[in-house]
Amino acid sequence: MMQRLCIIGVGLIGGSIAKAVRRQELCQQIVGVDADAENLRCALDLGIIDAAFAVCDLAEAAVGADWVVIATPVGAMPSALQGLQADWSDAMTVTDVGSTKQSAIAAAQAVFGATPANFVPGHPIAGAERSGVEAATDDLFVGKRVILTPVAETDPLALARVEQFWTAIGASVALMSPLHHDHVFAATSHLPHVLAYALVRLLGRMDEQEEIFQYAGAGFRDFTRIASSNPQMWADICLLNREPLIPLLGQLGAEISAVAEMMAQQSQPELCAYFTEAREARQRFLNQLETNS
Amino acid sequence: MMQRLCIIGVGLIGGSIAKAVRRQELCQQIVGVDADAENLRCALDLGIIDAAFAVCDLAEAAVGADWVVIATPVGAMPSALQGLQADWSDAMTVTDVGSTKQSAIAAAQAVFGATPANFVPGHPIAGAERSGVEAATDDLFVGKRVILTPVAETDPLALARVEQFWTAIGASVALMSPLHHDHVFAATSHLPHVLAYALVRLLGRMDEQEEIFQYAGAGFRDFTRIASSNPQMWADICLLNREPLIPLLGQLGAEISAVAEMMAQQSQPELCAYFTEAREARQRFLNQLETNS
Repeated sequence: MMQRLCIIGVGLIGGSIAKAVRRQELCQQIVGVDADAENLRCALDLGIIDAAFAVCDLAEAAVGADWVVIATPVGAMPSALQGLQADWSDAMTVTDVGSTKQSAIAAAQAVFGATPANFVPGHPIAGAERSGVEAATDDLFVGKRVILTPVAETDPLALARVEQFWTAIGASVALMSPLHHDHVFAATSHLPHVLAYALVRLLGRMDEQEEIFQYAGAGFRDFTRIASSNPQMWADICLLNREPLIPLLGQLGAEISAVAEMMAQQSQPELCAYFTEAREARQRFLNQLETNS
Repeated sequence: MMQRLCIIGVGLIGGSIAKAVRRQELCQQIVGVDADAENLRCALDLGIIDAAFAVCDLAEAAVGADWVVIATPVGAMPSALQGLQADWSDAMTVTDVGSTKQSAIAAAQAVFGATPANFVPGHPIAGAERSGVEAATDDLFVGKRVILTPVAETDPLALARVEQFWTAIGASVALMSPLHHDHVFAATSHLPHVLAYALVRLLGRMDEQEEIFQYAGAGFRDFTRIASSNPQMWADICLLNREPLIPLLGQLGAEISAVAEMMAQQSQPELCAYFTEAREARQRFLNQLETNS
Protein backbone atom coordinates (compact mmCIF):
# COMPACT_ATOMS: atom_id res chain seq x y z
CA MET A 1 0.00 0.00 0.00
CA MET A 2 1.29 3.43 -0.91
CA GLN A 3 0.96 6.10 1.76
CA ARG A 4 1.23 9.33 -0.20
CA LEU A 5 1.53 9.44 -3.97
CA CYS A 6 2.75 12.75 -5.35
CA ILE A 7 1.97 13.19 -9.04
CA ILE A 8 3.85 16.02 -10.72
CA GLY A 9 1.93 16.98 -13.85
CA VAL A 10 -1.73 16.01 -13.54
CA GLY A 11 -2.60 15.79 -17.24
CA LEU A 12 -3.93 12.91 -19.30
CA ILE A 13 -1.24 10.49 -18.09
CA GLY A 14 -0.81 11.78 -14.51
CA GLY A 15 -4.58 12.06 -14.05
CA SER A 16 -5.16 8.56 -15.44
CA ILE A 17 -2.53 7.16 -13.06
CA ALA A 18 -4.33 8.83 -10.14
CA LYS A 19 -7.70 7.46 -11.24
CA ALA A 20 -6.34 3.93 -11.76
CA VAL A 21 -4.57 3.98 -8.38
CA ARG A 22 -7.78 5.15 -6.74
CA ARG A 23 -9.83 2.47 -8.47
CA GLN A 24 -7.45 -0.25 -7.31
CA GLU A 25 -7.31 1.28 -3.81
CA LEU A 26 -3.52 1.25 -3.92
CA CYS A 27 -2.91 4.49 -2.01
CA GLN A 28 -4.11 6.42 1.02
CA GLN A 29 -3.52 9.92 -0.32
CA ILE A 30 -2.85 11.33 -3.77
CA VAL A 31 -1.50 14.85 -4.13
CA GLY A 32 -1.01 16.67 -7.41
CA VAL A 33 1.29 19.39 -8.68
CA ASP A 34 0.61 21.22 -11.93
CA ALA A 35 1.80 24.35 -13.71
CA ASP A 36 -1.68 24.99 -15.08
CA ALA A 37 -3.83 26.38 -12.23
CA GLU A 38 -7.09 25.70 -14.04
CA ASN A 39 -6.13 22.10 -14.83
CA LEU A 40 -5.05 21.60 -11.20
CA ARG A 41 -8.32 23.03 -9.89
CA CYS A 42 -10.19 20.69 -12.23
CA ALA A 43 -8.24 17.65 -10.93
CA LEU A 44 -9.18 18.62 -7.38
CA ASP A 45 -12.82 19.33 -8.22
CA LEU A 46 -13.14 15.96 -9.98
CA GLY A 47 -11.74 14.22 -6.89
CA ILE A 48 -8.81 12.85 -8.88
CA ILE A 49 -6.36 14.25 -6.32
CA ASP A 50 -6.83 14.89 -2.60
CA ALA A 51 -4.67 18.01 -2.45
CA ALA A 52 -3.35 20.42 -5.05
CA PHE A 53 -0.03 22.28 -5.15
CA ALA A 54 1.32 24.90 -7.52
CA VAL A 55 4.75 24.22 -9.03
CA CYS A 56 6.38 26.67 -6.58
CA ASP A 57 5.09 24.45 -3.74
CA LEU A 58 6.41 21.21 -5.26
CA ALA A 59 8.73 20.54 -2.28
CA GLU A 60 5.79 20.80 0.10
CA ALA A 61 3.75 18.40 -2.03
CA ALA A 62 6.54 15.83 -1.89
CA VAL A 63 6.95 15.96 1.90
CA GLY A 64 6.04 12.57 3.32
CA ALA A 65 5.49 11.09 -0.12
CA ASP A 66 6.69 7.50 -0.44
CA TRP A 67 5.87 7.56 -4.16
CA VAL A 68 6.53 10.28 -6.74
CA VAL A 69 5.46 10.03 -10.38
CA ILE A 70 6.80 12.75 -12.67
CA ALA A 71 4.22 13.05 -15.45
CA THR A 72 5.09 16.50 -16.77
CA PRO A 73 5.85 17.10 -20.46
CA VAL A 74 9.45 15.95 -21.03
CA GLY A 75 10.65 19.54 -21.30
CA ALA A 76 9.70 20.17 -17.64
CA MET A 77 11.55 17.09 -16.34
CA PRO A 78 14.70 18.99 -15.21
CA SER A 79 12.73 21.55 -13.20
CA ALA A 80 10.60 18.81 -11.61
CA LEU A 81 13.74 17.00 -10.45
CA GLN A 82 15.23 20.28 -9.19
CA GLY A 83 12.06 20.89 -7.22
CA LEU A 84 12.39 17.48 -5.57
CA GLN A 85 16.11 17.77 -4.82
CA ALA A 86 16.03 19.45 -1.37
CA ASP A 87 13.63 16.88 0.12
CA TRP A 88 14.75 13.84 -1.89
CA SER A 89 14.67 10.81 0.37
CA ASP A 90 15.76 7.19 -0.03
CA ALA A 91 12.35 6.25 1.36
CA MET A 92 10.76 7.48 -1.89
CA THR A 93 10.20 5.47 -5.05
CA VAL A 94 10.36 7.86 -7.98
CA THR A 95 9.45 7.15 -11.58
CA ASP A 96 8.51 9.16 -14.66
CA VAL A 97 6.43 8.67 -17.80
CA GLY A 98 8.41 10.64 -20.39
CA SER A 99 8.65 9.61 -24.04
CA THR A 100 12.43 10.12 -24.13
CA LYS A 101 14.51 8.21 -21.61
CA GLN A 102 18.14 9.21 -22.16
CA SER A 103 17.09 12.82 -21.59
CA ALA A 104 15.31 11.90 -18.32
CA ILE A 105 18.44 10.17 -17.07
CA ALA A 106 20.63 13.07 -18.18
CA ALA A 107 18.34 15.46 -16.29
CA ALA A 108 18.64 13.34 -13.13
CA GLN A 109 22.41 13.21 -13.49
CA ALA A 110 22.57 16.99 -13.96
CA VAL A 111 20.59 17.61 -10.75
CA PHE A 112 21.98 14.82 -8.51
CA GLY A 113 25.43 14.22 -10.00
CA ALA A 114 24.42 10.59 -10.69
CA THR A 115 21.14 8.80 -11.34
CA PRO A 116 19.55 8.24 -7.91
CA ALA A 117 19.11 4.53 -7.10
CA ASN A 118 15.43 5.04 -6.32
CA PHE A 119 14.64 6.79 -9.61
CA VAL A 120 13.26 4.31 -12.17
CA PRO A 121 12.85 5.85 -15.63
CA GLY A 122 9.68 4.66 -17.37
CA HIS A 123 7.43 5.20 -20.39
CA PRO A 124 3.84 3.93 -20.63
CA ILE A 125 2.85 3.36 -24.29
CA ALA A 126 -0.51 4.99 -23.92
CA GLY A 127 -1.79 8.38 -24.84
CA ALA A 128 -4.16 10.22 -27.06
CA GLU A 129 -4.21 13.37 -29.07
CA ARG A 130 -6.29 14.82 -26.25
CA SER A 131 -4.54 16.21 -23.20
CA GLY A 132 -5.37 17.61 -19.77
CA VAL A 133 -6.85 15.98 -16.69
CA GLU A 134 -10.39 16.02 -18.07
CA ALA A 135 -9.31 13.41 -20.64
CA ALA A 136 -8.00 11.09 -17.90
CA THR A 137 -9.56 7.63 -17.48
CA ASP A 138 -9.04 4.90 -14.88
CA ASP A 139 -8.39 2.25 -17.54
CA LEU A 140 -5.93 4.07 -19.80
CA PHE A 141 -3.14 1.59 -19.02
CA VAL A 142 -5.14 -1.63 -19.06
CA GLY A 143 -3.57 -3.96 -21.59
CA LYS A 144 -0.91 -1.37 -22.48
CA ARG A 145 2.83 -1.79 -22.37
CA VAL A 146 5.12 0.16 -20.06
CA ILE A 147 8.83 0.30 -20.83
CA LEU A 148 11.19 0.71 -17.87
CA THR A 149 14.78 1.68 -18.62
CA PRO A 150 16.84 1.09 -15.46
CA VAL A 151 20.52 2.02 -15.43
CA ALA A 152 23.49 0.49 -13.57
CA GLU A 153 22.76 2.62 -10.48
CA THR A 154 19.08 1.62 -10.25
CA ASP A 155 18.11 -0.24 -7.06
CA PRO A 156 16.59 -3.61 -8.10
CA LEU A 157 14.02 -3.27 -5.30
CA ALA A 158 12.87 0.11 -6.61
CA LEU A 159 12.64 -1.39 -10.09
CA ALA A 160 10.55 -4.28 -8.74
CA ARG A 161 8.21 -1.88 -6.93
CA VAL A 162 7.66 0.18 -10.08
CA GLU A 163 7.02 -3.01 -12.07
CA GLN A 164 4.43 -4.10 -9.50
CA PHE A 165 2.84 -0.68 -9.56
CA TRP A 166 2.22 -0.74 -13.32
CA THR A 167 1.09 -4.35 -13.26
CA ALA A 168 -1.41 -3.48 -10.53
CA ILE A 169 -3.08 -0.92 -12.78
CA GLY A 170 -3.31 -3.29 -15.71
CA ALA A 171 -0.18 -2.70 -17.79
CA SER A 172 2.50 -5.18 -18.82
CA VAL A 173 6.10 -4.16 -18.22
CA ALA A 174 9.11 -4.60 -20.50
CA LEU A 175 12.70 -3.63 -19.75
CA MET A 176 15.00 -1.95 -22.24
CA SER A 177 18.18 0.10 -22.29
CA PRO A 178 17.55 3.87 -22.46
CA LEU A 179 19.48 4.06 -25.75
CA HIS A 180 17.49 1.25 -27.37
CA HIS A 181 14.23 2.76 -26.10
CA ASP A 182 15.01 6.11 -27.68
CA HIS A 183 15.94 4.54 -31.03
CA VAL A 184 12.82 2.38 -31.13
CA PHE A 185 10.46 5.24 -30.27
CA ALA A 186 12.17 7.67 -32.59
CA ALA A 187 11.13 5.27 -35.35
CA THR A 188 7.67 4.08 -34.32
CA SER A 189 6.35 7.17 -32.56
CA HIS A 190 8.36 10.37 -33.01
CA LEU A 191 8.95 9.96 -36.75
CA PRO A 192 5.24 9.34 -37.53
CA HIS A 193 4.32 12.42 -35.49
CA VAL A 194 6.77 14.63 -37.40
CA LEU A 195 5.53 13.18 -40.67
CA ALA A 196 1.89 13.84 -39.81
CA TYR A 197 2.67 17.41 -38.76
CA ALA A 198 4.70 18.00 -41.96
CA LEU A 199 1.99 16.61 -44.22
CA VAL A 200 -0.83 18.54 -42.61
CA ARG A 201 1.14 21.78 -42.58
CA LEU A 202 1.93 21.41 -46.30
CA LEU A 203 -1.68 20.60 -47.15
CA GLY A 204 -2.99 23.31 -44.82
CA ARG A 205 -1.11 25.90 -46.87
CA MET A 206 -2.48 24.38 -50.10
CA ASP A 207 -5.98 24.41 -48.59
CA GLU A 208 -5.77 28.16 -48.11
CA GLN A 209 -5.21 28.45 -51.87
CA GLU A 210 -7.65 25.92 -53.26
CA GLU A 211 -9.79 24.30 -50.57
CA ILE A 212 -8.52 20.75 -50.74
CA PHE A 213 -9.65 19.69 -47.24
CA GLN A 214 -13.33 19.56 -48.09
CA TYR A 215 -12.74 16.50 -50.27
CA ALA A 216 -10.66 14.59 -47.75
CA GLY A 217 -12.38 11.75 -45.97
CA ALA A 218 -12.02 9.24 -43.15
CA GLY A 219 -8.71 7.85 -44.43
CA PHE A 220 -7.14 11.28 -44.21
CA ARG A 221 -8.68 11.84 -40.79
CA ASP A 222 -7.10 8.63 -39.44
CA PHE A 223 -3.76 9.26 -41.11
CA THR A 224 -3.47 12.73 -39.62
CA ARG A 225 -4.92 12.03 -36.16
CA ILE A 226 -1.53 12.40 -34.46
CA ALA A 227 -1.05 15.86 -36.02
CA SER A 228 -3.60 17.01 -33.43
CA SER A 229 -1.19 16.13 -30.61
CA ASN A 230 0.09 18.85 -28.28
CA PRO A 231 2.66 20.89 -30.30
CA GLN A 232 4.72 22.09 -27.32
CA MET A 233 4.98 18.60 -25.88
CA TRP A 234 6.02 17.12 -29.22
CA ALA A 235 8.50 19.87 -29.98
CA ASP A 236 10.20 19.01 -26.69
CA ILE A 237 10.15 15.27 -27.37
CA CYS A 238 11.61 15.74 -30.86
CA LEU A 239 14.37 18.02 -29.63
CA LEU A 240 15.31 15.78 -26.72
CA ASN A 241 15.41 12.76 -29.01
CA ARG A 242 16.88 14.52 -32.03
CA GLU A 243 19.96 12.30 -32.13
CA PRO A 244 18.19 9.23 -33.55
CA LEU A 245 15.33 11.25 -35.07
CA ILE A 246 17.27 13.50 -37.45
CA PRO A 247 18.93 10.58 -39.29
CA LEU A 248 15.54 8.84 -39.55
CA LEU A 249 14.07 11.96 -41.16
CA GLY A 250 16.93 11.81 -43.65
CA GLN A 251 16.25 8.16 -44.38
CA LEU A 252 12.56 8.80 -44.87
CA GLY A 253 13.36 11.68 -47.22
CA ALA A 254 15.51 9.27 -49.23
CA GLU A 255 12.63 6.75 -49.39
CA ILE A 256 10.30 9.46 -50.66
CA SER A 257 12.82 10.52 -53.31
CA ALA A 258 13.22 6.89 -54.39
CA VAL A 259 9.47 6.49 -54.82
CA ALA A 260 9.26 9.76 -56.77
CA GLU A 261 12.02 8.47 -59.05
CA MET A 262 10.13 5.19 -59.66
CA MET A 263 7.11 7.28 -60.64
CA ALA A 264 9.17 9.51 -62.93
CA GLN A 265 10.56 6.34 -64.57
CA GLN A 266 7.01 4.95 -64.74
CA SER A 267 8.34 1.71 -63.32
CA GLN A 268 5.10 -0.06 -62.35
CA PRO A 269 6.67 -3.39 -61.22
CA GLU A 270 9.20 -1.62 -59.02
CA LEU A 271 6.58 0.64 -57.43
CA CYS A 272 4.22 -2.28 -56.92
CA ALA A 273 6.98 -4.34 -55.27
CA TYR A 274 7.79 -1.39 -53.00
CA PHE A 275 4.16 -0.99 -51.88
CA THR A 276 3.83 -4.77 -51.48
CA GLU A 277 6.85 -4.93 -49.18
CA ALA A 278 5.29 -2.14 -47.10
CA ARG A 279 1.94 -3.91 -46.88
CA GLU A 280 3.63 -7.13 -45.79
CA ALA A 281 5.62 -5.26 -43.13
CA ARG A 282 2.42 -3.73 -41.78
CA GLN A 283 0.83 -7.17 -41.66
CA ARG A 284 3.77 -8.38 -39.54
CA PHE A 285 3.15 -5.44 -37.21
CA LEU A 286 -0.60 -6.21 -37.00
CA ASN A 287 0.08 -9.87 -36.24
CA GLN A 288 2.39 -8.86 -33.39
CA LEU A 289 -0.11 -6.33 -32.06
CA GLU A 290 -2.75 -9.06 -31.94
CA THR A 291 -0.39 -11.49 -30.22
CA ASN A 292 0.57 -8.90 -27.63
CA SER A 293 -2.96 -7.86 -26.73
CA MET B 1 -35.76 2.45 -63.25
CA MET B 2 -32.65 0.88 -64.77
CA GLN B 3 -33.20 -2.17 -66.95
CA ARG B 4 -29.82 -3.83 -67.01
CA LEU B 5 -26.84 -2.57 -65.03
CA CYS B 6 -23.50 -3.92 -66.15
CA ILE B 7 -20.78 -3.57 -63.50
CA ILE B 8 -17.26 -4.10 -64.77
CA GLY B 9 -15.07 -4.95 -61.79
CA VAL B 10 -17.17 -6.42 -58.97
CA GLY B 11 -14.84 -5.61 -56.08
CA LEU B 12 -15.43 -3.55 -52.95
CA ILE B 13 -16.77 -0.56 -54.91
CA GLY B 14 -18.53 -2.40 -57.76
CA GLY B 15 -20.05 -4.92 -55.35
CA SER B 16 -21.21 -2.17 -52.98
CA ILE B 17 -22.86 -0.35 -55.89
CA ALA B 18 -24.70 -3.56 -56.84
CA LYS B 19 -25.85 -4.11 -53.26
CA ALA B 20 -27.00 -0.51 -52.86
CA VAL B 21 -28.87 -0.58 -56.18
CA ARG B 22 -30.53 -3.82 -55.14
CA ARG B 23 -31.50 -2.42 -51.76
CA GLN B 24 -33.08 0.64 -53.36
CA GLU B 25 -34.75 -1.51 -56.02
CA LEU B 26 -33.36 0.71 -58.76
CA CYS B 27 -32.71 -1.97 -61.35
CA GLN B 28 -34.26 -5.10 -62.88
CA GLN B 29 -31.06 -6.98 -63.62
CA ILE B 30 -27.46 -6.59 -62.50
CA VAL B 31 -24.69 -8.35 -64.39
CA GLY B 32 -21.06 -8.43 -63.36
CA VAL B 33 -17.73 -8.75 -65.16
CA ASP B 34 -14.53 -9.52 -63.31
CA ALA B 35 -10.99 -10.66 -64.11
CA ASP B 36 -10.85 -12.72 -60.92
CA ALA B 37 -12.92 -15.89 -61.46
CA GLU B 38 -13.11 -16.68 -57.77
CA ASN B 39 -14.25 -13.16 -56.88
CA LEU B 40 -16.84 -13.29 -59.69
CA ARG B 41 -18.15 -16.65 -58.49
CA CYS B 42 -18.41 -15.23 -54.99
CA ALA B 43 -20.44 -12.23 -56.25
CA LEU B 44 -22.84 -14.60 -57.97
CA ASP B 45 -23.09 -16.97 -54.99
CA LEU B 46 -23.82 -14.05 -52.66
CA GLY B 47 -26.61 -12.91 -54.99
CA ILE B 48 -24.90 -9.57 -55.52
CA ILE B 49 -25.12 -10.01 -59.31
CA ASP B 50 -27.68 -11.94 -61.38
CA ALA B 51 -25.25 -13.10 -64.05
CA ALA B 52 -21.47 -13.34 -64.24
CA PHE B 53 -19.17 -12.79 -67.22
CA ALA B 54 -15.43 -13.26 -67.63
CA VAL B 55 -13.49 -10.29 -69.03
CA CYS B 56 -13.31 -11.97 -72.48
CA ASP B 57 -17.16 -11.91 -72.52
CA LEU B 58 -17.42 -8.25 -71.57
CA ALA B 59 -19.19 -7.34 -74.85
CA GLU B 60 -21.86 -9.97 -74.18
CA ALA B 61 -22.36 -8.66 -70.63
CA ALA B 62 -22.95 -5.16 -71.96
CA VAL B 63 -25.53 -6.20 -74.57
CA GLY B 64 -28.85 -4.62 -73.67
CA ALA B 65 -27.35 -2.74 -70.76
CA ASP B 66 -28.75 0.77 -70.31
CA TRP B 67 -26.24 1.41 -67.50
CA VAL B 68 -22.56 0.55 -67.32
CA VAL B 69 -20.38 1.25 -64.29
CA ILE B 70 -16.65 0.68 -64.77
CA ALA B 71 -15.33 -0.17 -61.32
CA THR B 72 -12.05 -1.83 -62.24
CA PRO B 73 -8.73 -0.71 -60.80
CA VAL B 74 -7.69 2.40 -62.76
CA GLY B 75 -5.00 0.44 -64.61
CA ALA B 76 -7.69 -1.70 -66.29
CA MET B 77 -9.76 1.29 -67.47
CA PRO B 78 -8.38 1.31 -71.06
CA SER B 79 -9.12 -2.38 -71.61
CA ALA B 80 -12.62 -2.03 -70.11
CA LEU B 81 -13.41 0.78 -72.55
CA GLN B 82 -11.95 -1.23 -75.45
CA GLY B 83 -14.17 -4.15 -74.47
CA LEU B 84 -17.23 -1.88 -74.61
CA GLN B 85 -16.31 -0.19 -77.90
CA ALA B 86 -17.93 -2.57 -80.41
CA ASP B 87 -21.36 -2.48 -78.72
CA TRP B 88 -21.21 1.08 -77.37
CA SER B 89 -24.63 2.63 -77.71
CA ASP B 90 -26.04 6.10 -77.14
CA ALA B 91 -28.81 4.41 -75.16
CA MET B 92 -26.28 3.59 -72.45
CA THR B 93 -25.28 5.76 -69.52
CA VAL B 94 -21.67 4.97 -68.64
CA THR B 95 -19.74 6.10 -65.61
CA ASP B 96 -16.63 5.01 -63.71
CA VAL B 97 -15.32 5.17 -60.16
CA GLY B 98 -11.59 5.63 -60.70
CA SER B 99 -9.38 7.68 -58.38
CA THR B 100 -7.70 9.50 -61.26
CA LYS B 101 -9.92 11.37 -63.71
CA GLN B 102 -7.66 12.85 -66.38
CA SER B 103 -6.39 9.33 -67.07
CA ALA B 104 -9.97 7.99 -67.41
CA ILE B 105 -10.78 10.71 -69.92
CA ALA B 106 -7.51 10.13 -71.80
CA ALA B 107 -8.37 6.41 -71.98
CA ALA B 108 -11.81 7.21 -73.43
CA GLN B 109 -10.29 9.59 -75.96
CA ALA B 110 -7.74 6.97 -76.99
CA VAL B 111 -10.45 4.38 -77.63
CA PHE B 112 -13.20 6.57 -79.11
CA GLY B 113 -11.23 9.48 -80.57
CA ALA B 114 -13.16 11.85 -78.28
CA THR B 115 -14.85 11.53 -74.90
CA PRO B 116 -18.28 9.95 -75.59
CA ALA B 117 -21.18 12.24 -74.59
CA ASN B 118 -22.74 9.48 -72.49
CA PHE B 119 -19.58 8.75 -70.49
CA VAL B 120 -19.60 10.63 -67.19
CA PRO B 121 -16.28 10.30 -65.30
CA GLY B 122 -16.81 9.92 -61.56
CA HIS B 123 -15.05 9.17 -58.27
CA PRO B 124 -16.85 8.14 -55.08
CA ILE B 125 -14.84 9.13 -51.98
CA ALA B 126 -15.33 5.83 -50.23
CA GLY B 127 -13.20 2.81 -49.80
CA ALA B 128 -11.30 0.79 -47.32
CA GLU B 129 -8.01 -1.01 -47.06
CA ARG B 130 -10.01 -4.19 -47.66
CA SER B 131 -10.88 -5.18 -51.20
CA GLY B 132 -12.90 -7.78 -53.06
CA VAL B 133 -16.64 -8.35 -53.31
CA GLU B 134 -16.85 -9.98 -49.88
CA ALA B 135 -16.05 -6.59 -48.34
CA ALA B 136 -18.95 -4.93 -50.22
CA THR B 137 -21.79 -3.35 -48.22
CA ASP B 138 -25.09 -1.81 -49.31
CA ASP B 139 -24.43 1.41 -47.37
CA LEU B 140 -20.84 2.15 -48.41
CA PHE B 141 -21.85 5.38 -50.15
CA VAL B 142 -24.37 6.68 -47.64
CA GLY B 143 -23.28 10.14 -46.54
CA LYS B 144 -20.20 9.99 -48.79
CA ARG B 145 -19.19 12.42 -51.50
CA VAL B 146 -18.99 11.55 -55.17
CA ILE B 147 -17.03 13.81 -57.49
CA LEU B 148 -18.15 13.95 -61.11
CA THR B 149 -15.78 15.51 -63.62
CA PRO B 150 -17.74 16.15 -66.83
CA VAL B 151 -15.93 17.55 -69.87
CA ALA B 152 -17.15 19.84 -72.68
CA GLU B 153 -18.49 16.85 -74.67
CA THR B 154 -20.51 15.42 -71.77
CA ASP B 155 -24.28 15.27 -72.36
CA PRO B 156 -25.96 17.27 -69.57
CA LEU B 157 -28.75 14.67 -69.44
CA ALA B 158 -26.26 11.84 -68.88
CA LEU B 159 -24.62 13.93 -66.16
CA ALA B 160 -28.01 14.50 -64.52
CA ARG B 161 -28.80 10.78 -64.63
CA VAL B 162 -25.48 9.87 -62.99
CA GLU B 163 -26.05 12.54 -60.33
CA GLN B 164 -29.49 11.08 -59.59
CA PHE B 165 -28.05 7.58 -59.47
CA TRP B 166 -25.51 8.46 -56.77
CA THR B 167 -28.03 10.51 -54.83
CA ALA B 168 -30.45 7.56 -54.89
CA ILE B 169 -27.88 5.35 -53.12
CA GLY B 170 -27.16 7.95 -50.46
CA ALA B 171 -24.17 9.94 -51.71
CA SER B 172 -23.90 13.68 -52.28
CA VAL B 173 -22.49 14.80 -55.62
CA ALA B 174 -19.98 17.58 -56.33
CA LEU B 175 -18.73 18.69 -59.76
CA MET B 176 -15.11 19.51 -60.48
CA SER B 177 -12.79 19.80 -63.45
CA PRO B 178 -10.72 16.63 -64.07
CA LEU B 179 -7.49 18.63 -63.60
CA HIS B 180 -8.61 20.11 -60.29
CA HIS B 181 -9.82 16.71 -59.11
CA ASP B 182 -6.46 15.11 -59.79
CA HIS B 183 -4.56 17.88 -58.01
CA VAL B 184 -6.81 17.75 -54.95
CA PHE B 185 -6.64 13.97 -54.62
CA ALA B 186 -2.91 13.83 -55.29
CA ALA B 187 -2.61 15.93 -52.11
CA THR B 188 -5.27 14.51 -49.79
CA SER B 189 -5.27 10.86 -50.83
CA HIS B 190 -2.40 9.72 -53.06
CA LEU B 191 0.35 11.57 -51.15
CA PRO B 192 -0.73 10.13 -47.75
CA HIS B 193 -0.80 6.63 -49.24
CA VAL B 194 2.74 6.99 -50.60
CA LEU B 195 3.93 8.35 -47.25
CA ALA B 196 2.36 5.51 -45.32
CA TYR B 197 3.93 2.95 -47.65
CA ALA B 198 7.33 4.69 -47.44
CA LEU B 199 7.27 4.91 -43.66
CA VAL B 200 6.19 1.32 -43.13
CA ARG B 201 8.73 -0.02 -45.62
CA LEU B 202 11.53 1.91 -43.88
CA LEU B 203 10.44 0.71 -40.45
CA GLY B 204 9.82 -2.83 -41.71
CA ARG B 205 13.48 -3.06 -42.69
CA MET B 206 14.52 -1.68 -39.29
CA ASP B 207 12.20 -4.19 -37.60
CA GLU B 208 14.06 -7.06 -39.22
CA GLN B 209 17.21 -5.78 -37.48
CA GLU B 210 15.93 -4.84 -34.05
CA GLU B 211 12.26 -5.67 -33.57
CA ILE B 212 10.80 -2.20 -33.30
CA PHE B 213 7.21 -3.14 -34.20
CA GLN B 214 6.47 -4.90 -30.92
CA TYR B 215 6.57 -1.54 -29.13
CA ALA B 216 4.33 0.30 -31.57
CA GLY B 217 0.77 0.90 -30.47
CA ALA B 218 -2.63 2.10 -31.61
CA GLY B 219 -1.34 5.46 -32.86
CA PHE B 220 1.02 3.70 -35.23
CA ARG B 221 -1.75 1.31 -36.29
CA ASP B 222 -4.04 4.21 -37.25
CA PHE B 223 -1.27 6.19 -38.92
CA THR B 224 -0.28 3.26 -41.13
CA ARG B 225 -3.75 1.85 -41.88
CA ILE B 226 -3.62 2.98 -45.53
CA ALA B 227 -0.32 1.12 -46.04
CA SER B 228 -2.45 -2.03 -46.05
CA SER B 229 -4.21 -0.86 -49.23
CA ASN B 230 -3.92 -2.92 -52.41
CA PRO B 231 -0.36 -2.34 -53.77
CA GLN B 232 -1.13 -2.97 -57.44
CA MET B 233 -4.12 -0.64 -57.40
CA TRP B 234 -2.14 2.11 -55.71
CA ALA B 235 0.88 1.69 -57.95
CA ASP B 236 -1.46 2.29 -60.90
CA ILE B 237 -3.12 5.30 -59.26
CA CYS B 238 0.24 6.88 -58.42
CA LEU B 239 1.63 6.35 -61.90
CA LEU B 240 -1.49 7.68 -63.65
CA ASN B 241 -1.50 10.74 -61.39
CA ARG B 242 2.27 11.19 -61.23
CA GLU B 243 2.14 14.67 -62.75
CA PRO B 244 0.81 16.41 -59.62
CA LEU B 245 2.08 13.72 -57.25
CA ILE B 246 5.82 13.88 -57.99
CA PRO B 247 6.10 17.63 -57.19
CA LEU B 248 4.10 17.09 -53.99
CA LEU B 249 6.56 14.40 -52.91
CA GLY B 250 9.34 16.92 -53.52
CA GLN B 251 7.54 19.56 -51.44
CA LEU B 252 7.00 17.11 -48.61
CA GLY B 253 10.65 16.12 -48.74
CA ALA B 254 11.52 19.81 -48.35
CA GLU B 255 9.18 20.11 -45.35
CA ILE B 256 10.86 17.10 -43.70
CA SER B 257 14.30 18.61 -44.34
CA ALA B 258 13.17 21.92 -42.86
CA VAL B 259 11.94 20.20 -39.69
CA ALA B 260 15.18 18.22 -39.41
CA GLU B 261 17.09 21.50 -39.69
CA MET B 262 15.00 23.09 -36.90
CA MET B 263 15.88 20.08 -34.74
CA ALA B 264 19.57 20.31 -35.60
CA GLN B 265 19.45 24.01 -34.66
CA GLN B 266 17.54 23.07 -31.48
CA SER B 267 15.08 25.83 -32.32
CA GLN B 268 12.22 25.00 -29.95
CA PRO B 269 10.03 28.05 -30.72
CA GLU B 270 10.31 27.49 -34.47
CA LEU B 271 9.50 23.77 -34.18
CA CYS B 272 6.63 24.47 -31.82
CA ALA B 273 5.20 27.10 -34.20
CA TYR B 274 5.48 24.60 -37.08
CA PHE B 275 3.61 21.87 -35.19
CA THR B 276 1.04 24.40 -33.99
CA GLU B 277 0.30 25.53 -37.54
CA ALA B 278 -0.19 21.87 -38.50
CA ARG B 279 -2.54 21.22 -35.61
CA GLU B 280 -4.60 24.28 -36.47
CA ALA B 281 -4.80 23.17 -40.12
CA ARG B 282 -6.05 19.74 -39.04
CA GLN B 283 -8.66 21.40 -36.84
CA ARG B 284 -9.92 23.33 -39.89
CA PHE B 285 -10.17 20.02 -41.74
CA LEU B 286 -12.07 18.39 -38.85
CA ASN B 287 -14.49 21.31 -38.65
CA GLN B 288 -15.24 20.98 -42.37
CA LEU B 289 -15.64 17.20 -42.10
CA GLU B 290 -18.20 17.74 -39.35
CA THR B 291 -20.06 20.39 -41.36
CA ASN B 292 -20.16 18.13 -44.43
CA SER B 293 -21.46 15.05 -42.66
